[in-house]
Amino acid sequence: MKNPNLKGLIAAPFSPMLENGDLNFAILDDYVDYLVTQGVCSVYVNGTTGEGLSLSFEERKLAAEKWVQAGKGKLKSVIIQVGSCSLRDTKALAKHAAAKGADVIATLPPFFFKPKTIGLLVDYLAEVAAEVPDVPFMYYHIPEMTGVHFDMAKLMKEAADRIPNFGGLKFTSLDLSEFGRCSELFGDQLTICYSKDEQVSGAYMLGATAAVGSTYNYCGKLNNKIIDACMNGDFKTAGKLQKKVTLFIGVLLDYGLDVAINKAVMTKLSGLDMGPSRLPLAPVSAQTVENITKDLKKIEFFDWGQ
Amino acid sequence: MKNPNLKGLIAAPFSPMLENGDLNFAILDDYVDYLVTQGVCSVYVNGTTGEGLSLSFEERKLAAEKWVQAGKGKLKSVIIQVGSCSLRDTKALAKHAAAKGADVIATLPPFFFKPKTIGLLVDYLAEVAAEVPDVPFMYYHIPEMTGVHFDMAKLMKEAADRIPNFGGLKFTSLDLSEFGRCSELFGDQLTICYSKDEQVSGAYMLGATAAVGSTYNYCGKLNNKIIDACMNGDFKTAGKLQKKVTLFIGVLLDYGLDVAINKAVMTKLSGLDMGPSRLPLAPVSAQTVENITKDLKKIEFFDWGQ
Amino acid sequence: MKNPNLKGLIAAPFSPMLENGDLNFAILDDYVDYLVTQGVCSVYVNGTTGEGLSLSFEERKLAAEKWVQAGKGKLKSVIIQVGSCSLRDTKALAKHAAAKGADVIATLPPFFFKPKTIGLLVDYLAEVAAEVPDVPFMYYHIPEMTGVHFDMAKLMKEAADRIPNFGGLKFTSLDLSEFGRCSELFGDQLTICYSKDEQVSGAYMLGATAAVGSTYNYCGKLNNKIIDACMNGDFKTAGKLQKKVTLFIGVLLDYGLDVAINKAVMTKLSGLDMGPSRLPLAPVSAQTVENITKDLKKIEFFDWGQ
Amino acid sequence: MKNPNLKGLIAAPFSPMLENGDLNFAILDDYVDYLVTQGVCSVYVNGTTGEGLSLSFEERKLAAEKWVQAGKGKLKSVIIQVGSCSLRDTKALAKHAAAKGADVIATLPPFFFKPKTIGLLVDYLAEVAAEVPDVPFMYYHIPEMTGVHFDMAKLMKEAADRIPNFGGLKFTSLDLSEFGRCSELFGDQLTICYSKDEQVSGAYMLGATAAVGSTYNYCGKLNNKIIDACMNGDFKTAGKLQKKVTLFIGVLLDYGLDVAINKAVMTKLSGLDMGPSRLPLAPVSAQTVENITKDLKKIEFFDWGQ
Repeated sequence: MKNPNLKGLIAAPFSPMLENGDLNFAILDDYVDYLVTQGVCSVYVNGTTGEGLSLSFEERKLAAEKWVQAGKGKLKSVIIQVGSCSLRDTKALAKHAAAKGADVIATLPPFFFKPKTIGLLVDYLAEVAAEVPDVPFMYYHIPEMTGVHFDMAKLMKEAADRIPNFGGLKFTSLDLSEFGRCSELFGDQLTICYSKDEQVSGAYMLGATAAVGSTYNYCGKLNNKIIDACMNGDFKTAGKLQKKVTLFIGVLLDYGLDVAINKAVMTKLSGLDMGPSRLPLAPVSAQTVENITKDLKKIEFFDWGQ
Repeated sequence: MKNPNLKGLIAAPFSPMLENGDLNFAILDDYVDYLVTQGVCSVYVNGTTGEGLSLSFEERKLAAEKWVQAGKGKLKSVIIQVGSCSLRDTKALAKHAAAKGADVIATLPPFFFKPKTIGLLVDYLAEVAAEVPDVPFMYYHIPEMTGVHFDMAKLMKEAADRIPNFGGLKFTSLDLSEFGRCSELFGDQLTICYSKDEQVSGAYMLGATAAVGSTYNYCGKLNNKIIDACMNGDFKTAGKLQKKVTLFIGVLLDYGLDVAINKAVMTKLSGLDMGPSRLPLAPVSAQTVENITKDLKKIEFFDWGQ
Repeated sequence: MKNPNLKGLIAAPFSPMLENGDLNFAILDDYVDYLVTQGVCSVYVNGTTGEGLSLSFEERKLAAEKWVQAGKGKLKSVIIQVGSCSLRDTKALAKHAAAKGADVIATLPPFFFKPKTIGLLVDYLAEVAAEVPDVPFMYYHIPEMTGVHFDMAKLMKEAADRIPNFGGLKFTSLDLSEFGRCSELFGDQLTICYSKDEQVSGAYMLGATAAVGSTYNYCGKLNNKIIDACMNGDFKTAGKLQKKVTLFIGVLLDYGLDVAINKAVMTKLSGLDMGPSRLPLAPVSAQTVENITKDLKKIEFFDWGQ
Repeated sequence: MKNPNLKGLIAAPFSPMLENGDLNFAILDDYVDYLVTQGVCSVYVNGTTGEGLSLSFEERKLAAEKWVQAGKGKLKSVIIQVGSCSLRDTKALAKHAAAKGADVIATLPPFFFKPKTIGLLVDYLAEVAAEVPDVPFMYYHIPEMTGVHFDMAKLMKEAADRIPNFGGLKFTSLDLSEFGRCSELFGDQLTICYSKDEQVSGAYMLGATAAVGSTYNYCGKLNNKIIDACMNGDFKTAGKLQKKVTLFIGVLLDYGLDVAINKAVMTKLSGLDMGPSRLPLAPVSAQTVENITKDLKKIEFFDWGQ
């Protein structure tokens, strides 16, 4: 086991793009600075929020490299997500990212062919992890996207046994009980990043010490207050602020919340131009952003010090 | 709106049965006394845990009547779940339960034909509620069993508008964010009972004031400590105890947790003979109960003062 | 095994209703006469098309009785579907239907609690079948509605072994290969009614000898031509006519095909007033029926001699 | 529209591999010769059977090139499947395949982010198709793998309008009615390859003229007899032989049929060493192959002249 020792707020950054859809790396330094002002200490690159699976193989490598550079001296850890449907591509991406200086490598499971057993999944993960033996290696659990639904406590047991540099999980699921069991079993030795922003306080109650999320891109301050309240054992403040987050998410859900909507909100709130999303995500019109902003005003979002 | 004002721990009781499968009402007084010693203040009868849908139409009426009687003077509220796939049967069950003195009527949605819109669901619920105009009427949200997945905040808005005696929800879903929005919108006027025992503390953080569950049948004391901790704003104690619950649930999951397993555990822990479950649930062998008990000892469950 | 020896076109009749939703049995004699003119030889009562699960327990008994009476001397077999989520209610419905003279008893699986294994499902079915030992007993396979997805070849093997009066299946699934295996294994001894009207010719190619469907209520003539073509080995005619059916289904799908739409179409085409459907199905407006009729004219449906 | 004019039996070839998992192109000439002896006239490369999504980006390009070469003068058409989750990679693969001489380009939809509407899917497809304007472009419909479930008749209408080189579908679904409507609408102008081997005769009845499948790799002769029977309007022979195929599939299903099992069967039946499959597919033991062979003997598979 090789604990990445991730702590606190980790943003899953969007992939900034130009109007023509090309990746816009020119903005990365400003982006990282903005994240730092939000209280974000690490980034989880090329995951769902970053449209990692929509990038080309070469773009993923480039993005990994650029984020590692941009984060240097400013961020504690740069985690690179390397999962794809192809074990060979995933291994190549892992090796590349490690060579470029990634602090942690994470991968989602193959999701065209899905592993039928936990054993086959660990076989797959072990091959990826072996490419980067000196880097902590995490599993990216996001069953709503991949359709791969194993019990994470069982996965952790087998992965910890068989993968020398196993580092833990990014846990993107509403099941706090499953999270709690993982945390009980391995919370002292490994990192289990909780990844449903809207109920992060529930995870902290069960032992979470790190959270990865997309809304931390632009609501980092508010979420740091939630996490601080949790760390201080301040139940009421944590609850009060968490409820604000659920209202915020409610507004986005009314507009069909997906990564494209979320990215447009980021542009609006940060002032940094994230650009469009890629197909098959739908473009988000200026009118939609306007309507979302109005609804956010109604719930007094802009007074929260998000 | 007609708030049932449910508070605290509500057990979803099992349906005690004789070896031949007949309902065993002779045990009800003892059962209620046992629940009271657990700190349970109300019961939610004929729901999933009570195998309500496995009872015959006539048995459901009888069970409703017997539970109302058994609870008199001992329990604060007896809630009767009347949902089925037939609106007419459901209406009849609602009317019967109200006539026999049920404090609250609840129904799950029809789930053979499923409503295509929230509007159609509220049409259906309004017809049931109109049978019992003087009794608070609740919707039983349990999408994992019914396959009916609407946004509960939207359902509450429409039901509150159109159903004069609408009383709130039994909310059986892991989505705390959705729960939080419901709570924010209607928590002051209606009751939203949270119903995933294994993450009840997360719901209390977001404003829950009542919890319905099956494990409260035999872990009432432990869960009351969780709820007390939540009400007192004691984050650490709530979390520590909630984690114990997740470990307990983990043991049951290892044995294929379903209502039959849960019922067998109840017999073991309470000393009250709950009898078998009905088909299509699988019988639970004495060996399985033995193994579960051993595993519970391993996690020191019996030292928790459950 | 007890082969019901069903052959040819079997209608799954709608449940005619008055405007207030009461069952309208006054129309049954005319309904049966109409079916006979369509070339329908048997009926499958209280299934999905008949909104069997939306009827009350008492209505189901009454409907069974009335259909048996109405069919006497006119129809070859009256099959009564008795499935519900409650084994006890299902047993009572089976016993009642047999006592009233049903020729065949069929049941869908319990679908609130779902059987975890084929063995448990056969345990359940065996109990129902034992109530009607002298009547052929069929299993109603309709996974899209029940969520119960077992391999029917395996189910048949176990049911044939353990249920003395097992009679076969109503097979409502697109999987013709699975149908073909059932037919190969048991086609000589049991009846496997194919139940996806839109690809019935494919099933006949694999050995089907009986078909149950809702469209046979009003497209019986056309479908009898398909079946005749199949029985005569006339591939081209069967295909040409089957294609017409797919076009017809396509029109209904454009309007959100469900039992309510189908029932409204029946009223329009037969001239028999089927009345409304029950909640949670949506009412069908006169305008929708008008639009469907126009679209059916466009595909020359009314020239087909349906 | 640009009809690829595919006819008859099209194999979806496996990707032959060495023991170390490298692609084994040395075997391709023999493989193609074997397919020709089976009566296969075209190949559909890098699809599900070919583990296309498990290959690396570079391997996919190499495989496309090698298959085009190997097919030259022996096969009528070499179709290259280029779909992935990344539009940019997919465009690059399409352009590359066309440059190397692919006769047809096909793509599955993006399946990490799934298009929310048919319009968005056609936006995506149009971009891919525009890379290869002179080559017929097909959509690969395989909802069981991708989770993308649109009505193919509607997709065809929109794609035919907006994509100048749209060529039709590879239709991998059991829904023959949907297939029939596609065939009715566009069967004269476009090619709709049916792709569920086990019910191909049903599709031919509704107008199919081409079939893509994995079992055609080693059961080409048998399937050509089925197709010939269909083309000759010989219902009984088509049905009799199709039933054999369903029995064969039944044996494979008993062993957990997936691409790895299928590939091992190919090695056994063809004598050509296909090698292992890639993770996350499970390795297939020699014992399993032995058991399958025994079971195939029991159903007299080897006497069928497959």
